[in-house]
Amino acid sequence: MTIFLQPPSVNALARPLVDSLVADAAGLRLTVSAGPGGCRFIDAGAGVPGSIEAGRRVAEICLAGLGRVSIAPTGPVERWPFSVNVQTTNPVLACLGCQYAGWSLRAGSGKEAYFALGSGPGRAAARVEPLFVELGYSDEADSAVLILETASPPPETVVRNVAEATRLAPEALTFIYAPTQSLAGATQVVSRVLEVALHKAHSLGFPLADIVDGLGTAPLAPPTPDFVRAMGRTNDAIIYGGRVHLFVAGTAQAAKSLAEALPSPTSRDHGKPFAEIFSRFKGDFYAIDPHLFSPAEVIVTALENGETFRGGHLMPDLVDASFS
Amino acid sequence: MTIFLQPPSVNALARPLVDSLVADAAGLRLTVSAGPGGCRFIDAGAGVPGSIEAGRRVAEICLAGLGRVSIAPTGPVERWPFSVNVQTTNPVLACLGCQYAGWSLRAGSGKEAYFALGSGPGRAAARVEPLFVELGYSDEADSAVLILETASPPPETVVRNVAEATRLAPEALTFIYAPTQSLAGATQVVSRVLEVALHKAHSLGFPLADIVDGLGTAPLAPPTPDFVRAMGRTNDAIIYGGRVHLFVAGTAQAAKSLAEALPSPTSRDHGKPFAEIFSRFKGDFYAIDPHLFSPAEVIVTALENGETFRGGHLMPDLVDASFS
Amino acid sequence: MTIFLQPPSVNALARPLVDSLVADAAGLRLTVSAGPGGCRFIDAGAGVPGSIEAGRRVAEICLAGLGRVSIAPTGPVERWPFSVNVQTTNPVLACLGCQYAGWSLRAGSGKEAYFALGSGPGRAAARVEPLFVELGYSDEADSAVLILETASPPPETVVRNVAEATRLAPEALTFIYAPTQSLAGATQVVSRVLEVALHKAHSLGFPLADIVDGLGTAPLAPPTPDFVRAMGRTNDAIIYGGRVHLFVAGTAQAAKSLAEALPSPTSRDHGKPFAEIFSRFKGDFYAIDPHLFSPAEVIVTALENGETFRGGHLMPDLVDASFS
Repeated sequence: MTIFLQPPSVNALARPLVDSLVADAAGLRLTVSAGPGGCRFIDAGAGVPGSIEAGRRVAEICLAGLGRVSIAPTGPVERWPFSVNVQTTNPVLACLGCQYAGWSLRAGSGKEAYFALGSGPGRAAARVEPLFVELGYSDEADSAVLILETASPPPETVVRNVAEATRLAPEALTFIYAPTQSLAGATQVVSRVLEVALHKAHSLGFPLADIVDGLGTAPLAPPTPDFVRAMGRTNDAIIYGGRVHLFVAGTAQAAKSLAEALPSPTSRDHGKPFAEIFSRFKGDFYAIDPHLFSPAEVIVTALENGETFRGGHLMPDLVDASFS
Repeated sequence: MTIFLQPPSVNALARPLVDSLVADAAGLRLTVSAGPGGCRFIDAGAGVPGSIEAGRRVAEICLAGLGRVSIAPTGPVERWPFSVNVQTTNPVLACLGCQYAGWSLRAGSGKEAYFALGSGPGRAAARVEPLFVELGYSDEADSAVLILETASPPPETVVRNVAEATRLAPEALTFIYAPTQSLAGATQVVSRVLEVALHKAHSLGFPLADIVDGLGTAPLAPPTPDFVRAMGRTNDAIIYGGRVHLFVAGTAQAAKSLAEALPSPTSRDHGKPFAEIFSRFKGDFYAIDPHLFSPAEVIVTALENGETFRGGHLMPDLVDASFS
Repeated sequence: MTIFLQPPSVNALARPLVDSLVADAAGLRLTVSAGPGGCRFIDAGAGVPGSIEAGRRVAEICLAGLGRVSIAPTGPVERWPFSVNVQTTNPVLACLGCQYAGWSLRAGSGKEAYFALGSGPGRAAARVEPLFVELGYSDEADSAVLILETASPPPETVVRNVAEATRLAPEALTFIYAPTQSLAGATQVVSRVLEVALHKAHSLGFPLADIVDGLGTAPLAPPTPDFVRAMGRTNDAIIYGGRVHLFVAGTAQAAKSLAEALPSPTSRDHGKPFAEIFSRFKGDFYAIDPHLFSPAEVIVTALENGETFRGGHLMPDLVDASFS
């Protein structure tokens, strides 16, 4: 089964969505400005109020238009009924090739240091991450868009580095930024419920080419101004309130193993609000068990024989403690 | 935090949605005709069957395209699972500046009298309501659309008055009408679940500029031919079956007070089907406690510190009694 | 009440949706190829992985764009939360005039035999089924699209027959095919939850012109490679997990009778997984009680007086047994 059938250009797919975001900026309460070298900055939640709808649309841009993100009135956690839902065609290309925040963008040092994790289709044009060798995908687009989970736009050095890596002029680059603490930020981070499942599946050694389709949902985390708490909530939404349904090729046995290993309860750090875990590890993100980053509940259907396997469980009380 | 950032022209935003409604009229089972002075009449449920989908689209027009309205298969009331969901960017401009039925349109007297409450973006072009001074918003559009919850189109006098108030030729005006008793009417009225929350928040003295985002849902009220019962059902859908989540600036204390004061159970008239209350007050709408008009359950997140407050409760049995 | 008000051309309505499916083929993992006489073949799940999203869009094409199909994170069956939802304007034209798989397409015999049930707007251009006399609808379009629930495209004879019946050149024809065992196939078959309700209503003698609007939902059936089991699951999704809400004209008494007679529990064959019933009847589809093909739970609102009637009940355990 071929996963990348005549793969589309992810930046070309994202471009009309970015243009439409810009056209609707006033209604969505975003600002658009020119950055270094004529690149385009879209502030979706730093100096502007932004909106949940802006976050929803940024999430779809992050998925290169290969996924649909919606806000539903019900979801996995009864007390936090409004939820973020994501559906992708081509989940590996959409989630790992685009949405995953895998590109470290740095500039300066000390107090002047800038650091952001870049996500979005622009990553596939740059291919600086080893992951792209595995994905076997490269995007030769004439524009690129990156999403940054930050409160400030990238400095000139970063813009220049991105231009070089993507072999594009700065004028062809768009950077959308919104901190996790904002409405748009919280929404787009929670929409990563399916992406984290794919990322963990990959780290568990499950063949990416066998992930054929996927659906995900998690409660919309209310934004909060403290960065650690905001990050905690968006993670808890997924870790304790998230649910995905994957459809996989390969053997049913492999699907069964995936369903057992994938959900968050298999992590040694599972069971406490994320912000508390983060504090326990003194803010050292990389000391946290990476297997914690996955949905609470996982449903995996093996396309080989149609069997479905389940793993994990929701912890609605913990979501509630985190969000309250 | 600026709420109206380069405010868009709400009638300009609504125009393509109106054009698309006209283009799809046959499929949606609407009729389009020419009215006095060449204005456009769209009958969405008076002399035509219309449809729930027509009501959904009329609701989006009413919100000037600044909101998304959808029908979901689940919602707050289990026994009436199909529900109307509304999500807005810029809730104050979308709901109060456009969707609120705040413009009294009258003509004639006695048996010949015509009365309708106008809603939709056209209100922001006319600005005859004092509310617009507070909103600080004015729309200089070259077309305007009004939604009327009536069984007949406006007479020439009303069309002329609207043309004068909006400083537009009648040819630039579109009037969409559908009675509450119709499929489209019931759908678009239930979609006001978020708007009534904003309106009550305003009457409680909560600063409008502090309402940053909002989501709402309520069960789709089945239409019924009796006007009082139809009005009762759409109100009960919201008052006893509606739920909103607001995201507000300002202090957490103000958010807490809002969550306590906003839901319908705080009203002295709460607890009976709306049609019964209406009869008790002998059909004098204005004798009813205006604080009754609000969602059953309210969730308010204070953006200041990320705290969430709750108030009210659903009364599914009362929804069921009203709808059955 | 007129149901077909200036009826639109269903193939003209479907055309932009088909063009958009073709434009997005790579992302949706479909292939587009030229068939006999220059007709267009779209493989949505036979030799390609396809996707749930492809199935969702094929379902909307099947409804001629007169309906919306969506995937929701919740639905009637808790253990299989992701569900397929369908909403139509003009349900009779959309579901029976288009989506119903009513056109038998045959060619060859013996081992070479090809058989497919054609669904989609193309049926209304051909009008070979007696149903169209009753519907009083005919589509004079300059293109036509048919959906086939098969693993192979139609042979030349079938293409020629369709061209003749629709009075169109083969170049104007598009055939979309996907077997029930595929992601797209399973999705589009489950989206028939409303259509089967209309079909059974018709066979019960309920006047089609009285069916004014409708909503439906059923759990997304996981695909499985065995044809009988795949067919079983998609049927069980509807028969034991499906729910519809119809809005009907005519008398309240007729609405009440419809609600009682319409749901699947009224069938003598109700109560076992469909695949088991199919085996019991030795694979003779036509020996199965046709009244089994209907949603588990039915809600009918009589527009005459606003009364709502209910019938049937979900059997979530049976859905679970079938899907697992």
